[in-house]
Amino acid sequence: MKLTYTGKTKDVYALEDGNYLLKFKDDVTGVDGVFDPGANTVGLTMEGAGRAGLKLTKFFFEILKEKGIPTHYIDADIEQATMTVKPAEVFGKGLEVICRYRAVGSFLRRYGLYAEEGQPLDAFVEVTLKDDDRQDPPISEDALDMLGILTKDEYQVLKALTQQIGNVVKDELTKKGIELYDIKFEFGRVGDDKQIVLIDEISGGNMRAYKDGEYIEPLELEKMFL
Amino acid sequence: MKLTYTGKTKDVYALEDGNYLLKFKDDVTGVDGVFDPGANTVGLTMEGAGRAGLKLTKFFFEILKEKGIPTHYIDADIEQATMTVKPAEVFGKGLEVICRYRAVGSFLRRYGLYAEEGQPLDAFVEVTLKDDDRQDPPISEDALDMLGILTKDEYQVLKALTQQIGNVVKDELTKKGIELYDIKFEFGRVGDDKQIVLIDEISGGNMRAYKDGEYIEPLELEKMFL
Repeated sequence: MKLTYTGKTKDVYALEDGNYLLKFKDDVTGVDGVFDPGANTVGLTMEGAGRAGLKLTKFFFEILKEKGIPTHYIDADIEQATMTVKPAEVFGKGLEVICRYRAVGSFLRRYGLYAEEGQPLDAFVEVTLKDDDRQDPPISEDALDMLGILTKDEYQVLKALTQQIGNVVKDELTKKGIELYDIKFEFGRVGDDKQIVLIDEISGGNMRAYKDGEYIEPLELEKMFL
Repeated sequence: MKLTYTGKTKDVYALEDGNYLLKFKDDVTGVDGVFDPGANTVGLTMEGAGRAGLKLTKFFFEILKEKGIPTHYIDADIEQATMTVKPAEVFGKGLEVICRYRAVGSFLRRYGLYAEEGQPLDAFVEVTLKDDDRQDPPISEDALDMLGILTKDEYQVLKALTQQIGNVVKDELTKKGIELYDIKFEFGRVGDDKQIVLIDEISGGNMRAYKDGEYIEPLELEKMFL
């Protein structure tokens, strides 16, 4: 098993059978010790964050499997904080796909002239480039196509999957009296037919969730949830 | 005749017949005395800039009229540096629509991870909000629709018109040995049927043009052109 990538919140190892092992770390993204799922830096380290993130990821990826929604997930070992996944090719140098149910965060910073804070948004999808040096710029369907990152057909699949998965997560949270404001996903191409599937994770660190109007910290969310 | 709006490069007067008079000023956008068509501030004042901009605008709007491409243009008085136009309703609080033939400016600042400086782009269209406080953020077709700024059908009309008009300007410049890198337009709705038409101006201040690899200043461009 060989370390192939060291990420902000995960390390990636290549397995001999061609699959990959993701090791969930206790680091979460944020700025100056405050968690922010949109941040590009590790803001803080929280004991047990990796394992808690993996538990939630396993929970959601198994629900998606039941529903026939494609992901890279094979299995997870909570004790070891590792998840085994199929090899996936990312789009370009990596994209983030955001699904929004309420106007907060970067949406509000960009479109505050037209949107009120907390205004409901109908599973609005937007794509940003993973590019720390350029503050993860948003990118349109046309630009993704023109720059050879994603075809127009792939964009439609990506958008539909994002809304479908976002709605699954939202519904599960609703069952616990928690409201999902926004969530970010990563996707990749898997197999010879380049099927678009959800990759990475679905954990507290990828979403903004609220209960009775109060923001829930990622670790707290994971505790409330499982 | 009543002053209804004072813009960065133009003043707008309401006429008694319901039309509007645009008075072209000698101010051009830029930062610290350097012209930048994408800037939100008046960077410098240049004697004759208003009249030169109007001359080029008249030239292009009359070509567009011949070609049956809709604009708000009625007529122009070069001496007075004024243009008479039909009343138009802008989209939301104003949009800018950019047509790009080479990767420079904000496109490169956002997508430099995937694009080389000066790389050809095939009449790539993007829309930004006119919002000085938020640095004119780019906005997608989906967001324009969701925020009630522009319907999806209107977006398609806007995009097609932008490419059509961009290509007209590009062809005219090519005849003079000048290459168009990018150009920005404004559109509005005119009349009871809310027809989408080009508004504002087409002048050196709205485009980046190059000759033999050298950038041409707006006033210079207007001189070379007419």
